[in-house]
Amino acid sequence: MKLWQKNTEVDKTVEKFTVGRDREMDFYLAKFDVLGSLAHTQMLESIGLLTSEDLEEIQKELKNIFREIEAGNFQIEDHAEDVHSQVEFMLTERIGEAGKKIHSGRSRNDQVLVDLKLFFRSEIEQMVLHVKELFDTLISLSEKHKNVLLPGYTHLQVAMPSSFGLWFGAYAESLIDDLELMLAAWKITNKNPLGSAAGYGSSFPLNRTMTTDLLGFEQLNYNVVYAQMGRGKTERILAQAMSSIAATMAKMAMDITLYMNQNFAFVKFPDHLTTGSSIMPHKKNPDVLELIRSRCNKIQALPNEIALMTTNLPSGYFRDLQLLKENLFPAFESLNDCMKLLVLMLDHIQINETILNDPKYDYLFSVEVVNNEVLNGVPFREAYKNIGLAIEDGTYKPLKEVNHTHEGSIGNLMNKQISEAFEKVINDFNFNKVHQALNALVKE
Amino acid sequence: MKLWQKNTEVDKTVEKFTVGRDREMDFYLAKFDVLGSLAHTQMLESIGLLTSEDLEEIQKELKNIFREIEAGNFQIEDHAEDVHSQVEFMLTERIGEAGKKIHSGRSRNDQVLVDLKLFFRSEIEQMVLHVKELFDTLISLSEKHKNVLLPGYTHLQVAMPSSFGLWFGAYAESLIDDLELMLAAWKITNKNPLGSAAGYGSSFPLNRTMTTDLLGFEQLNYNVVYAQMGRGKTERILAQAMSSIAATMAKMAMDITLYMNQNFAFVKFPDHLTTGSSIMPHKKNPDVLELIRSRCNKIQALPNEIALMTTNLPSGYFRDLQLLKENLFPAFESLNDCMKLLVLMLDHIQINETILNDPKYDYLFSVEVVNNEVLNGVPFREAYKNIGLAIEDGTYKPLKEVNHTHEGSIGNLMNKQISEAFEKVINDFNFNKVHQALNALVKE
Amino acid sequence: MKLWQKNTEVDKTVEKFTVGRDREMDFYLAKFDVLGSLAHTQMLESIGLLTSEDLEEIQKELKNIFREIEAGNFQIEDHAEDVHSQVEFMLTERIGEAGKKIHSGRSRNDQVLVDLKLFFRSEIEQMVLHVKELFDTLISLSEKHKNVLLPGYTHLQVAMPSSFGLWFGAYAESLIDDLELMLAAWKITNKNPLGSAAGYGSSFPLNRTMTTDLLGFEQLNYNVVYAQMGRGKTERILAQAMSSIAATMAKMAMDITLYMNQNFAFVKFPDHLTTGSSIMPHKKNPDVLELIRSRCNKIQALPNEIALMTTNLPSGYFRDLQLLKENLFPAFESLNDCMKLLVLMLDHIQINETILNDPKYDYLFSVEVVNNEVLNGVPFREAYKNIGLAIEDGTYKPLKEVNHTHEGSIGNLMNKQISEAFEKVINDFNFNKVHQALNALVKE
Amino acid sequence: MKLWQKNTEVDKTVEKFTVGRDREMDFYLAKFDVLGSLAHTQMLESIGLLTSEDLEEIQKELKNIFREIEAGNFQIEDHAEDVHSQVEFMLTERIGEAGKKIHSGRSRNDQVLVDLKLFFRSEIEQMVLHVKELFDTLISLSEKHKNVLLPGYTHLQVAMPSSFGLWFGAYAESLIDDLELMLAAWKITNKNPLGSAAGYGSSFPLNRTMTTDLLGFEQLNYNVVYAQMGRGKTERILAQAMSSIAATMAKMAMDITLYMNQNFAFVKFPDHLTTGSSIMPHKKNPDVLELIRSRCNKIQALPNEIALMTTNLPSGYFRDLQLLKENLFPAFESLNDCMKLLVLMLDHIQINETILNDPKYDYLFSVEVVNNEVLNGVPFREAYKNIGLAIEDGTYKPLKEVNHTHEGSIGNLMNKQISEAFEKVINDFNFNKVHQALNALVKE
Repeated sequence: MKLWQKNTEVDKTVEKFTVGRDREMDFYLAKFDVLGSLAHTQMLESIGLLTSEDLEEIQKELKNIFREIEAGNFQIEDHAEDVHSQVEFMLTERIGEAGKKIHSGRSRNDQVLVDLKLFFRSEIEQMVLHVKELFDTLISLSEKHKNVLLPGYTHLQVAMPSSFGLWFGAYAESLIDDLELMLAAWKITNKNPLGSAAGYGSSFPLNRTMTTDLLGFEQLNYNVVYAQMGRGKTERILAQAMSSIAATMAKMAMDITLYMNQNFAFVKFPDHLTTGSSIMPHKKNPDVLELIRSRCNKIQALPNEIALMTTNLPSGYFRDLQLLKENLFPAFESLNDCMKLLVLMLDHIQINETILNDPKYDYLFSVEVVNNEVLNGVPFREAYKNIGLAIEDGTYKPLKEVNHTHEGSIGNLMNKQISEAFEKVINDFNFNKVHQALNALVKE
Repeated sequence: MKLWQKNTEVDKTVEKFTVGRDREMDFYLAKFDVLGSLAHTQMLESIGLLTSEDLEEIQKELKNIFREIEAGNFQIEDHAEDVHSQVEFMLTERIGEAGKKIHSGRSRNDQVLVDLKLFFRSEIEQMVLHVKELFDTLISLSEKHKNVLLPGYTHLQVAMPSSFGLWFGAYAESLIDDLELMLAAWKITNKNPLGSAAGYGSSFPLNRTMTTDLLGFEQLNYNVVYAQMGRGKTERILAQAMSSIAATMAKMAMDITLYMNQNFAFVKFPDHLTTGSSIMPHKKNPDVLELIRSRCNKIQALPNEIALMTTNLPSGYFRDLQLLKENLFPAFESLNDCMKLLVLMLDHIQINETILNDPKYDYLFSVEVVNNEVLNGVPFREAYKNIGLAIEDGTYKPLKEVNHTHEGSIGNLMNKQISEAFEKVINDFNFNKVHQALNALVKE
Repeated sequence: MKLWQKNTEVDKTVEKFTVGRDREMDFYLAKFDVLGSLAHTQMLESIGLLTSEDLEEIQKELKNIFREIEAGNFQIEDHAEDVHSQVEFMLTERIGEAGKKIHSGRSRNDQVLVDLKLFFRSEIEQMVLHVKELFDTLISLSEKHKNVLLPGYTHLQVAMPSSFGLWFGAYAESLIDDLELMLAAWKITNKNPLGSAAGYGSSFPLNRTMTTDLLGFEQLNYNVVYAQMGRGKTERILAQAMSSIAATMAKMAMDITLYMNQNFAFVKFPDHLTTGSSIMPHKKNPDVLELIRSRCNKIQALPNEIALMTTNLPSGYFRDLQLLKENLFPAFESLNDCMKLLVLMLDHIQINETILNDPKYDYLFSVEVVNNEVLNGVPFREAYKNIGLAIEDGTYKPLKEVNHTHEGSIGNLMNKQISEAFEKVINDFNFNKVHQALNALVKE
Repeated sequence: MKLWQKNTEVDKTVEKFTVGRDREMDFYLAKFDVLGSLAHTQMLESIGLLTSEDLEEIQKELKNIFREIEAGNFQIEDHAEDVHSQVEFMLTERIGEAGKKIHSGRSRNDQVLVDLKLFFRSEIEQMVLHVKELFDTLISLSEKHKNVLLPGYTHLQVAMPSSFGLWFGAYAESLIDDLELMLAAWKITNKNPLGSAAGYGSSFPLNRTMTTDLLGFEQLNYNVVYAQMGRGKTERILAQAMSSIAATMAKMAMDITLYMNQNFAFVKFPDHLTTGSSIMPHKKNPDVLELIRSRCNKIQALPNEIALMTTNLPSGYFRDLQLLKENLFPAFESLNDCMKLLVLMLDHIQINETILNDPKYDYLFSVEVVNNEVLNGVPFREAYKNIGLAIEDGTYKPLKEVNHTHEGSIGNLMNKQISEAFEKVINDFNFNKVHQALNALVKE
C-alpha cells in the first residue's frame, strides 16, 4: 500500500513502470534517510510535535535500523515503494503508532532532497579521498622519474624536450583544478533543504536551523522554493565536477595507450595487467586504460544528460527528477573504480629511459639552439630563420642538453608547491565537521 | 580461463574491472551469437575448413543451445568472460574437439559485430511494432475526436482554433518521419560484417556472400576495415533514430501534463492511472507521463553520449566500444516501455468537449474575422489592422464557427493519406525476408 | 515598421535583442522566400484570392527580385525585421497595393517553414555533391595504393597486416552509410508545410497539393499541426545526418595526424599544405587536418544543441525556434569546406611504401602463421597457443606474405561494388525532379 | 607573411581555412595581448634579455597601442594572421628592431594562453556584475510582492500556497549557487600560464613569479605541461559555470511564459516589451523571454560542445583548440544580454494580486487543514486520509489563511540572509587586486 493510497488500486503496469529501478537506487539512500529522520524527529520534539517519550522510542529504534543498514541487514521490500516507506513501515511495526509521526512536517520531496544531499556529501568525500591517492601516486612518480626525458609533441609532431617528471606532474596539478570544481559542488550540496516540504514550506513552526546544525550542514537552502529547485541542479553541478576529474583521467589514459603503442614504446606494463586477443597471440592490450578512458568519457556525457532531462521544466517538483538517480548513482562507483585502477596501473608502469637516443628526436632541440643564439645577442626572429634554413639544408646539429631552470620547467618541477596547493583545497572541504555532527546523531 | 590466456594469471581486480557488466549485457546477445555460429560453420564446411560430420554435430548442438536460450535455460557462467566463450565451452563440453573449430576464420571482433547487428535488427523490429501500435491508437483517437475543438497556442498564447483531431493526428504523422530515420538505421544495420575478423580480414578463403544470405542480410559491409568501423557508428545512428521517436513522445507527454493541469483542464485520466502525494490528499499526479518524458529525454541524450565515447578514436578496434552496450541495450526496453505505457494512457484519456465555451478563448477567432473581410475584398494588411484596433477598443466580436476545408486542416484531416504513408515506410523494412532466413537457419 | 505593429512603439533594446542575427541569417533564405511566394500566389489566383492581373504583375516582379538576389543585388534593410518583410516591401514599392496581397492565406510561420525546407533541400544537394567528390577521391586512392601494406592496429597495438587500399576504401564505404542517413533527412525535408499558416491551418480554401507540385515537393506535411512541429525537428534530423559525415571525416583526420607523426611516418604532405611554429623552426604541422577534425566535432555537437533548445517545449510555435538558424546555417558551409579541404589534402598525400620493412611489424603476421597451421589440420585454439608460446620464447618467425582473397579483404577490395552501392543511394535523392519544378517556377 | 614562414608560400585555400574567423575572434584579445607583453618585457629586462633602453621604448609604445585599442582605433590587418603578429608588426614599424625582441622566451602557445586567461578574467567580472544586478532586482521584487499569494504546483498540479515573495526570492538564491561555480572557474582561470612556451618550458631563466605578480594572478600554473593542458579545460569549466547561470534564467523564463499564458494569467508586461503576430491581431507575445530561454539553452549546450571537441586528444597543443574561441567568445555577450534583458523585463512585470480568489485553487489549502488536525493531536497518516476522503465526497472546506513562519517560508523569506550570503561569494572574487595590478601595468 502506498502512503498516498486512497480508495483506488493503481494499475499494476503503471506501478511497475513508475517504481522502475527506484528500490535499487533508494538502497543507496537508506542510511541517509535514517540520519535525516533522527534529526527531524529531534526537531519535532523541540517544537512540541512529538512527546519526549515518543522521541526516545523513535530515536532508539532508528539507531537500531541505522546499524542494521550498516551491517548489510536491510532491504526495501516489495510492498514498499521507496526507502522512506520502508523505514517508516519497519519503525511502525516495531514501536507502533509513534512510528507514523516521523513524517509530520515533511513531504517526501524534502525528505528525499535531504537524503540526496547527505548521500552526495558522503560520495564527494569518497571521491576526494581517491583523488588524493591518485595525486600522491602521480607526484611520487614525477619525482622518481624527474630526470628521464621524453619527446614533447605539439600537433602530435616532435616539438621540444619534455620529461616524465613534467608529464606525471602535469596530471597531478590537473587534479587541483578538478578539486576546485568539486569544492564548489560540495559547497552547493552542503546546504540543508529539510523543512521545504513539497517545495512551498509548512504551516508547522519548524526549526530549520536546528536540523541544519544536527546534520552538520554549513548553512540552509533558505528559500523553500529554491530548496526544491536544487533537485536536478545539485545533480548537474556534481556531475560537472565529476566530469572534470574524468576528463583528466581520460586524457592520461589516451596518452598512455599512445605511449604503449609499439611506434612510441615509451611505457610498458607487466603481463598480469594487460589482456590478450582471441586470434593474435602476440597482443598485450591496454584494456584497463581503454576502459578508464571510455568510462570517463561516459561520465563526461553525464552533465549534458541531466541538462536534457531537466531543461525547460518550470519550477516545482516533477517526477522526471526521480530518474536522475539512475544516471548519477552508478557514476560514483564508476569514477572511483577508474581512480583505483589508474593507481594500480601507475604503480606498475615501466618507463623507457633511453627514448631520446633515437635520432628521430634530434629536432626536439632546435629551440635550444635558437635560444642559444639569442643569448649571444641575435634577435629572436633572425635566429629562428637561421636554424630553420639550417634544418632545410641538412646542416642542423642538435645540442642534446636540457638546462631548464625556471619555475615549473624540467629542472624545477615545483612539486612541493603543487602538493601544498593541493592540500589547501582539500582542507577547505572540512569533512571533519560533518563527521562530528553525524557521529553525535547516531551515538547511543 | 580466457580464450587468449597464455602463461600469466590476469590480476583479479583488473579482471573484475574489464569484465564489468559484460556478462549481463552479453546475455542479450546469446541467441544471436548462436545464429552467427550456425551460419559461420555452414560456410566453413563449404570452404573445406570443417568436415561435414563435424558440421552436422555442431549444427545439431547449436540448435539445441538456441532452443535452451529461447526457453530461458541459459546463463553466462563466472568462468566465461563473455557469451562467445560460454557458447564455445558448452559446445566443446557436449561434442568435444569439434566445438573448438567454430572460431576458425573469425575474431571475437567480427563475432560480436555480427551478434550486435542481428540483435539490433531484432530490436528495431520490436520498436517498429510498438510504433505501429502507437500510431494506430493516435489515428483512431484523431478520428474519434475530430469534431472537438481545442485552443491552438503560439508562444503559449491563445492563437487560433485547433482540434483534438488535429492534435492526435499530428503526433501520428510525426511517427512517419521518425520511422524514416529508423529505416535508415535499419539499412545501415542490415549489412553483414562477418568475415572482417579483427578488422583486417583473414587469410582463409571465407565466403562472405554465403553468410550474408544465410543470415538474411541485405548486403555486405564490403571493406573489412569499414566493417569494424561500423562498431560505435551503428550504435550512434540507431540511437539517433531512437531519439527521434523519443522526442515525439516527450513532446506529447509535455502537452498532456500541461493539458491535465487545472488551469487548462483539457484532458483527464482515471484514478488508477494517476498517483497521489504523501502530504496533499487532493493530488492526482501524471507520474506516468512525466516518466515517459524523462525516459525519452534520457534517450535523446544517448547519441551524444555515444559520440563522446567514440570521438577522436583512430580507426581499429578499441575496448572503449565494449562499454556502449551498457548505454544502448537498456534503452531498447525503456523506449518500448514508454510506447506501451503511452498507448495504455491514451486508451483511457478523457476529453473535455466544451473547452471553447470559456470566453477567454474568444480571441482564437480573430483571424477568421480578418479572413472574412479579405474574402469581401479588403486587402489583408488593412483587415488585420482593423480587427487589431477593434480588439484594443473592445468592440471585437468573435465568429465562433470554424470552416476549414483545405488539406490537413480541422475539417479535412487526411488521416487516410497519413495511414497510407505510414504503411509505405513500414513495408520498406521487409522484416519477412529476415524471418525466412533465420527460420531456415534454426530449422531442425 | 513591423507587419504586426499596432499603436505602440516597441522598446529599442527589445527590438535589437529580438532581431538578433536574424537579418544575417535570413539572407540565406531570400531566394527561397521568393520561390515560395511564386508558388503561393499562383495558388491564390487559382482559388480566386488574386485576380489574374494582379498575379501577372506579382509574378513578373518576384522573378525580377529573384534575379537580383541571384546576382547579389539584394539586402535586408534596417527597417525590415526579416526577409519576408523585405520582399513584401520591395514588391509593394514597385507594384503598389497588389504587393500587399501575397501574404493572404499565410502566416510568417508557414512562410519561414517553407523557406527553410527549400533552403535545406538546396544545402543537402550541395553537401551530397561534396560527399561524391570525396568518395571518388577515396576510391581512386584506394585503387592506386591497393598493393601498399600498412600495419593494422587494434587497441593501438600492432595487430595484423592492412593496406592503403583497405584504409582509403573503408572511408569511402563509410560515406555510403552517411548518405543513407542524409537520404532520410532529405525525405523528411522534402514535404510541403505551406498552408499550415500559424500551425492551425486557414479558413481559406487553399490548394496545398498545388503548391506541393509547384515547389517540387515529394508530398505534403499533411496535418497542419505536424507541419509546424517539423520546425526544430527537421533541423535536428538534418544535423544528425551532417554529424555522421562529420564523424567519418573527423576519424580520418585523426588517423592522418597520427600517420603524419614521426613515430608512424606513414604519410606526408608537401610544405605548402602544412604550417610552421613560431618558435620551432623544424615543424610542419597538420593544421588543416586538425581544423577538419575540430570543425567536424563541433558539427557532431550540433544535434545535441538543437535537442537542448527544443526539448520540453509543448506543441505550437515558440520564438526559441528562430535561434536554431544561427547554429545550423553556418554549419553547412563549414561541413562543405571540410570536405573540400580534405579532398585537397588527399589529392597531395604522399604514401610511405616501405613501412613494413621495419622489424617492429613482424608480429603483424602471427595470425597468418596460426591460420597456416589450421589449414594443415591443427585445431584453431591449439595453433593459437603454439604461436603464442613461440612468441614468448623468441622462436617466432614471420611469414611476410599476405594472401587474402575473400570479399572485402586486401586482395579483393570490391571497390566496384562499393561504387555501385554509392550510386544507388545518390540516385534515390532524385534532385532532378526538384530542379525541373523550380526552373519552371522562375522561367520568364 | 607568417612569423613561422620559411621558403614556401602556403596554399591560399589552406590559409583561408586555417585563419578562419581567427582575426574576428582575436580582436577580443588585443588589449590583453598588450598587457601580457607589458609584463613579459619587464621580466625579460630583469633577467638581462632586454636592455633597459629597449624596455623603455617598448613599454612606451605598447602603452600607446593599448590606448589605441581602448579608443577603438585598432584592427588586425589582412597580412597579419593573428593579434600577436599584428601587435608585433605595429611595434616594429614604430620602434624598429627592438620590437622583434618581445617574443623572446615565449611561444604563441603561452602568449595566447595568457591572453585568454586575462580576457576570461575580464569577462567573468562583467558577468558577475550582471548577476549582481539581476540578484538585486529579484530580491527587491521579492520584498515588494511578499504578501501576494500564488498557487504552488507540483507535477504541474495545483499543490500548495506559494507567494511572489517566495518565487522571486528563489531565483535570487539560485544565483548564489551559480556564483559558487563561477568562483571555481575564476580560481582556475586566475593562474598564470606565461612562461610555459610551447607547453614544455624554456631554456631561458624566465622569472614566472614576476609576471604572475605583474599581471595580478593569484598564483602560477606551475607545471608547464599542465599550463598548456589548461587550454580547452579552462574554457570547458568556464562554460559549465556560465551554463549554471543560464539554467537559472532559462527556468525563470519558462515560468514567466507559462504565467503570461491566458490560462494562468499571473503576470503581464506592457505592450512595448511584447511583440505581435503577422496574422493574429490580438497577440502580445513574450518573444524576449523565449529568446532568453533559447539563448540560455544554447549556452547550456556549450560545455558539451567543448568536451566533444577536446575529448580523446592526447596531451600537447593541437590546432583544434583554436576553434573553441568561436563557441565561447560570443557566449559571453549573449549571457550578459540575457541578464540585461531579464532585468529590463522584471523592472516592468505586472503582478496579478487576486489570483487565489478563483475557486479552482481551493485545494491548495488541503495540507493546511491536515496540519491543523495534526496540531489537534490526530496522527498525520489519519488526518491525511480523512481530508482525502472529504475531498472525494465533496465535503472539503478550505481554510484560506496562510500562516507560515519558519525559516525560508512565505511569512519569513530570509531575504536579508540570502543577500548576505550573496555578498560573501562576490567578495571572494577580489576583483580589486586584479584592477590594481593591471592599472600599474598600463600607467604612464
